[in-house]
Amino acid sequence: MNLDWSNMLDNVITVGWKVAFIVIVYMIVSPLGKKIIQSIIGKAGKKQKLSEGRTKTLERLMMNIYAYVLGFVLIATLFGLLDIEIAPLIAGAGIVGLAIGFGAQGLVSDVVTGFFILLEKQVEVDEYVTAGGMNGIVEEVGLRTTKIRGLDGTLNFVPNRYITTISNHSRGNMRALVDIGISYDENIDEAIKVLQQVCEEFAQNDERIKEGPDVIGVNSLGSSDVVIRVLAQTENMEQWGVERDIRKRLKEALDEAGIEIPYPHQVNITKHVNHQ
Amino acid sequence: MNLDWSNMLDNVITVGWKVAFIVIVYMIVSPLGKKIIQSIIGKAGKKQKLSEGRTKTLERLMMNIYAYVLGFVLIATLFGLLDIEIAPLIAGAGIVGLAIGFGAQGLVSDVVTGFFILLEKQVEVDEYVTAGGMNGIVEEVGLRTTKIRGLDGTLNFVPNRYITTISNHSRGNMRALVDIGISYDENIDEAIKVLQQVCEEFAQNDERIKEGPDVIGVNSLGSSDVVIRVLAQTENMEQWGVERDIRKRLKEALDEAGIEIPYPHQVNITKHVNHQ
Amino acid sequence: MNLDWSNMLDNVITVGWKVAFIVIVYMIVSPLGKKIIQSIIGKAGKKQKLSEGRTKTLERLMMNIYAYVLGFVLIATLFGLLDIEIAPLIAGAGIVGLAIGFGAQGLVSDVVTGFFILLEKQVEVDEYVTAGGMNGIVEEVGLRTTKIRGLDGTLNFVPNRYITTISNHSRGNMRALVDIGISYDENIDEAIKVLQQVCEEFAQNDERIKEGPDVIGVNSLGSSDVVIRVLAQTENMEQWGVERDIRKRLKEALDEAGIEIPYPHQVNITKHVNHQ
Amino acid sequence: MNLDWSNMLDNVITVGWKVAFIVIVYMIVSPLGKKIIQSIIGKAGKKQKLSEGRTKTLERLMMNIYAYVLGFVLIATLFGLLDIEIAPLIAGAGIVGLAIGFGAQGLVSDVVTGFFILLEKQVEVDEYVTAGGMNGIVEEVGLRTTKIRGLDGTLNFVPNRYITTISNHSRGNMRALVDIGISYDENIDEAIKVLQQVCEEFAQNDERIKEGPDVIGVNSLGSSDVVIRVLAQTENMEQWGVERDIRKRLKEALDEAGIEIPYPHQVNITKHVNHQ
Amino acid sequence: MNLDWSNMLDNVITVGWKVAFIVIVYMIVSPLGKKIIQSIIGKAGKKQKLSEGRTKTLERLMMNIYAYVLGFVLIATLFGLLDIEIAPLIAGAGIVGLAIGFGAQGLVSDVVTGFFILLEKQVEVDEYVTAGGMNGIVEEVGLRTTKIRGLDGTLNFVPNRYITTISNHSRGNMRALVDIGISYDENIDEAIKVLQQVCEEFAQNDERIKEGPDVIGVNSLGSSDVVIRVLAQTENMEQWGVERDIRKRLKEALDEAGIEIPYPHQVNITKHVNHQ
Amino acid sequence: MNLDWSNMLDNVITVGWKVAFIVIVYMIVSPLGKKIIQSIIGKAGKKQKLSEGRTKTLERLMMNIYAYVLGFVLIATLFGLLDIEIAPLIAGAGIVGLAIGFGAQGLVSDVVTGFFILLEKQVEVDEYVTAGGMNGIVEEVGLRTTKIRGLDGTLNFVPNRYITTISNHSRGNMRALVDIGISYDENIDEAIKVLQQVCEEFAQNDERIKEGPDVIGVNSLGSSDVVIRVLAQTENMEQWGVERDIRKRLKEALDEAGIEIPYPHQVNITKHVNHQ
Amino acid sequence: MNLDWSNMLDNVITVGWKVAFIVIVYMIVSPLGKKIIQSIIGKAGKKQKLSEGRTKTLERLMMNIYAYVLGFVLIATLFGLLDIEIAPLIAGAGIVGLAIGFGAQGLVSDVVTGFFILLEKQVEVDEYVTAGGMNGIVEEVGLRTTKIRGLDGTLNFVPNRYITTISNHSRGNMRALVDIGISYDENIDEAIKVLQQVCEEFAQNDERIKEGPDVIGVNSLGSSDVVIRVLAQTENMEQWGVERDIRKRLKEALDEAGIEIPYPHQVNITKHVNHQ
Repeated sequence: MNLDWSNMLDNVITVGWKVAFIVIVYMIVSPLGKKIIQSIIGKAGKKQKLSEGRTKTLERLMMNIYAYVLGFVLIATLFGLLDIEIAPLIAGAGIVGLAIGFGAQGLVSDVVTGFFILLEKQVEVDEYVTAGGMNGIVEEVGLRTTKIRGLDGTLNFVPNRYITTISNHSRGNMRALVDIGISYDENIDEAIKVLQQVCEEFAQNDERIKEGPDVIGVNSLGSSDVVIRVLAQTENMEQWGVERDIRKRLKEALDEAGIEIPYPHQVNITKHVNHQ
Repeated sequence: MNLDWSNMLDNVITVGWKVAFIVIVYMIVSPLGKKIIQSIIGKAGKKQKLSEGRTKTLERLMMNIYAYVLGFVLIATLFGLLDIEIAPLIAGAGIVGLAIGFGAQGLVSDVVTGFFILLEKQVEVDEYVTAGGMNGIVEEVGLRTTKIRGLDGTLNFVPNRYITTISNHSRGNMRALVDIGISYDENIDEAIKVLQQVCEEFAQNDERIKEGPDVIGVNSLGSSDVVIRVLAQTENMEQWGVERDIRKRLKEALDEAGIEIPYPHQVNITKHVNHQ
Repeated sequence: MNLDWSNMLDNVITVGWKVAFIVIVYMIVSPLGKKIIQSIIGKAGKKQKLSEGRTKTLERLMMNIYAYVLGFVLIATLFGLLDIEIAPLIAGAGIVGLAIGFGAQGLVSDVVTGFFILLEKQVEVDEYVTAGGMNGIVEEVGLRTTKIRGLDGTLNFVPNRYITTISNHSRGNMRALVDIGISYDENIDEAIKVLQQVCEEFAQNDERIKEGPDVIGVNSLGSSDVVIRVLAQTENMEQWGVERDIRKRLKEALDEAGIEIPYPHQVNITKHVNHQ
Repeated sequence: MNLDWSNMLDNVITVGWKVAFIVIVYMIVSPLGKKIIQSIIGKAGKKQKLSEGRTKTLERLMMNIYAYVLGFVLIATLFGLLDIEIAPLIAGAGIVGLAIGFGAQGLVSDVVTGFFILLEKQVEVDEYVTAGGMNGIVEEVGLRTTKIRGLDGTLNFVPNRYITTISNHSRGNMRALVDIGISYDENIDEAIKVLQQVCEEFAQNDERIKEGPDVIGVNSLGSSDVVIRVLAQTENMEQWGVERDIRKRLKEALDEAGIEIPYPHQVNITKHVNHQ
Repeated sequence: MNLDWSNMLDNVITVGWKVAFIVIVYMIVSPLGKKIIQSIIGKAGKKQKLSEGRTKTLERLMMNIYAYVLGFVLIATLFGLLDIEIAPLIAGAGIVGLAIGFGAQGLVSDVVTGFFILLEKQVEVDEYVTAGGMNGIVEEVGLRTTKIRGLDGTLNFVPNRYITTISNHSRGNMRALVDIGISYDENIDEAIKVLQQVCEEFAQNDERIKEGPDVIGVNSLGSSDVVIRVLAQTENMEQWGVERDIRKRLKEALDEAGIEIPYPHQVNITKHVNHQ
Repeated sequence: MNLDWSNMLDNVITVGWKVAFIVIVYMIVSPLGKKIIQSIIGKAGKKQKLSEGRTKTLERLMMNIYAYVLGFVLIATLFGLLDIEIAPLIAGAGIVGLAIGFGAQGLVSDVVTGFFILLEKQVEVDEYVTAGGMNGIVEEVGLRTTKIRGLDGTLNFVPNRYITTISNHSRGNMRALVDIGISYDENIDEAIKVLQQVCEEFAQNDERIKEGPDVIGVNSLGSSDVVIRVLAQTENMEQWGVERDIRKRLKEALDEAGIEIPYPHQVNITKHVNHQ
Repeated sequence: MNLDWSNMLDNVITVGWKVAFIVIVYMIVSPLGKKIIQSIIGKAGKKQKLSEGRTKTLERLMMNIYAYVLGFVLIATLFGLLDIEIAPLIAGAGIVGLAIGFGAQGLVSDVVTGFFILLEKQVEVDEYVTAGGMNGIVEEVGLRTTKIRGLDGTLNFVPNRYITTISNHSRGNMRALVDIGISYDENIDEAIKVLQQVCEEFAQNDERIKEGPDVIGVNSLGSSDVVIRVLAQTENMEQWGVERDIRKRLKEALDEAGIEIPYPHQVNITKHVNHQ
């Protein structure tokens, strides 16, 4: 019987050595990994000029994930040393796990997308964006959901995974575009001259305008009018105001110059019916 | 033969130790986990200012899931100790499990989404929302389905997984927007003055209005009219009433000032047919 | 050679013990589980006030699933004891199983969805619902398919998995909504007075109406008419009849009061062509 | 060396016992299962009142599947006994199998759906149905494809998996619906009286009509006409004929009574242009 | 050391026996399976009345698949006997395999669908079909792609997996349908008599027509005309020609009988504007 | 201790034999497989009449895949012989692998589709095709992407997996189709005679036309005109030019013959308003 | 007990040998692989004429992936040697892994797509493209997202996986296309002569035009006009300007030549109502 005991002792010693080895590896890897993560996030944050608050958020997220994964690995490895068969257990959990995996992938997908939206600074709070089919001012960018306040006052909760392409309308100058139709009977060159004069007034007097406005030419020959297009570059979020002001002035200038903005036209042919 | 018995005894003892170890681990982990869950949910609840009832609901859900998973792990581990091969069994169940997993993922997806709708307070009962293509007043927010009472009286049962983006129309002031068209022959400045007067009346007398209303300018040059836009911010759910009242007054004010709201126009050209 | 026999005997005894253990576990778990299922379904049924028939249906479904799964587990475990390698067999079956799993998931999905439709009483037979793109009266709610009789007499078989959101039109009062347009030349206040009078008649005399009807104001300024909206709450399924009756009376009342319901208007401008 | 032989003999005997055990299990399970399948299909068939031919088809399908699966299990199990490692082989086949599994799932899905279409008698040959986007008379219901003869003569082959919801237009009475517009200048009550008279003629003389027809009231106020709706229940497939006949008679009755069915109306306002 | 050699010899012998057993099984199974496949395809071919060429194509496809699978099984099994661990290798290949599996499933799906299109004779070369969104004459039906020549001359390559429902327009008589509108002022009975006369001429003289044509009644009351429908059954592919001929004759017959085919009508009301 | 050494020697020898066996198998299989691939591609190339360059491309692709797979198999097998457990490693890599597998499947799918587009010669450079929603001239057919130059000059990069159905407009004669409307008052037979004369001129004089043109009859009865259709078969890519030329001549011929091509017609009924 | 120690020593030695072997393999494979990657990327870069910066980016990406994978392999293999069962651990991680795998596949998919967009130079910064439903000037092409500046000033972040087909509008000459309608009463040949004259002016004087412009003929017979099409090839990005200039000149030339550009026509038939 003493051979047995010695054998068990051997086993215990072997297991002990392994446990020691694993724990040492864990104790080396754990802080090392944290350091690496910290420095990577730190560098990325500096490179992307993230605010310190945002850097901390990202760092804490990464730290948590890292700690959970490493802890799970440690426990499972120690379990394995005690010859407790945990494989079948885990495999069995796989049935439940599969369902959960499919069900929860949305959550993971939200967080991954959210992480990059934050890191790449695709949106900031108070910017005007279109994301996930919603249009409005960003109220909050979270890891799971982004809150967008619609222009009509609605608060939209958009899970990040439904944000495919983000259109950010608050990054740089915007275009103001006005189309105006004149009669087929008017002289186009004369009309353009009148319109160009209005444009020059705006270019000199309106501080919201960064470039233009300019008459760029005959954009289309409509069924009843010749459509002329005017383009400008304005300060961000001022494009609608500028468009409204230019539109009003162009209309008034054409009226003053006696150039017709035509209503829809129709040629009527009167026919006397024979077969009745 | 007695060697055998001693061997069996050994095995029994070994197994006994392992069982003891596992049970002890279980007895430590089980209440510890419960405490952790309780405190996490509790903190999250306080941070999100959830009502106590809602916090309890979430806590109970998490407790149940935790207890089931841990119980499953305990039983499977004990089974494994008795050298009863359960891996193939579970693997075999995998065929059935795969079908169930795919089939039931919807259920899990419902619960995960529902959990976050509750936790993040995206909707409350009696709020007016758009979710999963349905538009109406929330009657109940469940873990699996959300009940939305449509404006026409229909009761909609929306499984949470079909709720992608929630548009909550009951969080803050709403916009009232009225577009009104005047004739091309009228003086725009004069019309705006008349409309602005109406706006100021409303701004002073109507308590439902929080901001504005204001005439913001010429919104478009229509085929027969010059469209002017009026905007206001109103109390929540009062936007339609305010819009209706402003619309009525603007129309009456233009009538009083003799400014035409034009019908569709058409220019008719009479032509005599030659080729007949 | 007799050592062998004793060894075999040992094995037989060991196996015997294990078989005994498993069978005992099975004999305890099996009725226990049934009891638990019965009591859960029973409680859920009472809480949801399900009819006894429906409770029995759900209980029988759960019992069957439970019995099949437990039976499968028992057989596979016993097989495993006899050292018959069944893992590869099952794994091999996995190829076929994968195809079946994907193919049959629809079936599982049907049953899971059907189970919740029954349990949550989302629809009852003879209710008017919209589900899976089909509109009509429910004829039967099954675990796999729901039969909906369309309003035109068609019988629709909707597999439950295609029922995403259920809109139940038979739960509570419904809205009756009538829009009526008056001429731009009429006095809006006068017209509203006439319409409101009709509403009050209905409110007093029509038992189908639960709330209103009321004139809620100018809903829009159309191209040729000022649209006024009337709203009421009616008994379920009476909304169409009420709408038809209100519509008829409103039209007659406006006729009596000499208020014009306008045809589409157009302003014609005659122009003599110069360039021909 | 003779110990070896005895060992081998032992092995052979052990294997022999196992083979015997498996074969006996197989010989018990095989006919038992067949009996069970037969009786289940038989009962289901009687309950659903399936024709004997259809019952046989379903039974043969189930028998085949059962036999193939059991045969596969038997062979794989015997292989396993001979210590021939088949796991890796099967695993390796998994790469091919995955591709096949995904590719062939459509086939399985077809058969599963087809099985339930047959069992639940959702369609019969010669019925008029809408399934999988195709509209027509059913020519054949197979396990894999359903053949639908379109009304224009086209033969459509619809794989069963693309049949989501089946709309069966041949199960019960159908609705005939005729909308007819009268002038805004006519008396609505008078018009309804005339139309109701026609309805009563039909109700008494037309054997195809099961219920109604009835004038149910003013369905809408169109831009130029007051639309009145007439509803009836007819024998299956007679709805179009009845609708055509009612439509013709209603038109003639209104003509006889001198009630106008109006053309589109427009109010023309002539305006003299000043700015030209 | 000689014990070792004997042991090795033993092993070699054991392996030898196993190899022999496997090879014998292979030699029995291989031709047997081929026979079975041949006879199944042969029978199916006769039952479906497939041409001999098509039967050969299907047989060769099945033979190839069968041979590859069996060969793979043989080699992997023999490998296993030599104690060369191939499982990890295969598992490792699984990473690549997964990608390939997903990528190549389209190919398998093509072949499976193609197989059934051929076997069930859903289309033949030179038939006019609609499949996978393409409309035209079939030029070739392959296992992977079907070539359809569009009516405008385009050659479409449709991978079989994109062929969901096949609409075959070349299997049986087709419907010719002509709608013709008469004035609201005409007598409907008279018009139907005239149209029916034309129909009878066609029924007697036109060999392309199999059934009808018949005037089936008033199909709708349009905004300006009473629409009457004429239906016929024609030989396949002759429906357009017949429709064109009937259409021409009906128009001429109505002209001869002095029955008006009306242009769009509008009632004009002239109004003098007061508010200007 | 010397027993150990001998044991190790034994192991080394055993391993040696296995290595030798595997290497020999490899050395036989490797060139054999290459030969087989070469001959298969060669034959397929001849059968499909592929250019030698294209055959080489396909052969090189197949060779590369074959070499990589075989090399991977060899290394993994040798690793396995050294008793280095690589299974867990690979399994672990599976987590990463799954993500990569899903992510990279698009790439594999591109190559598989591209392979068949090349092999089956579905498109050639300079052909006019519609593929993946893009319309234009093919500039390059690659294994991963196909470059299509749009008619407006845009260069489209279409990954092959997005090419579902290819419509090749450069394989054979194309159809020219001209619809022309004549007045309801004209004699149809006379008009057809005039149009047919123009067709005959084209048939004799225009070399681009391969068949027709022919007047095929009255295609529809429009609201204001009788539409007559003319069809022809032209040389590839000449269809638009031919259509333009025929259209011009038909218009001129009708003018010469005094047959009216009508403008939209409307019947105006003047009504005096009573209720105003 | 010393036998044990010797055994342990043996094990240690064996393990030592294996470690040595693995490390040597690693030390050979690691730099070798780097060399191979470097040379492949280098060659590909030269072949595709990539800028050195871009080549470096791709090389660094490939190096990183290679290093991470190899490092992971090394550690896992060493772990395996110490008899520490890591398989279950990894398998267990599979549940989490599955969720992550599904969730993160988007990320991998982004990088794979981005890699090929860079390698194949499908877009360059400052080019005008349509990708992922967004239209604009490329600001940055990253491995994960591509930034496209919309024409209205919006900055769009498009994850590369949503870029299916890229339409690059900055690769070569673009088409300018002008459609102009003349009256049905005008002589087509004369009109074409006038238009062709304008085209020739442009061909001689406008440097932006590379080919044409040419009058290509009668593109369609509209309801009121004969539409003639003019086509040209212009320098990239100049197409809109050229179209605007040609459009203006064509209109003026037709005016000068007295050729009418018609308004919509309508034939009015006055009818006296009998049935009123």
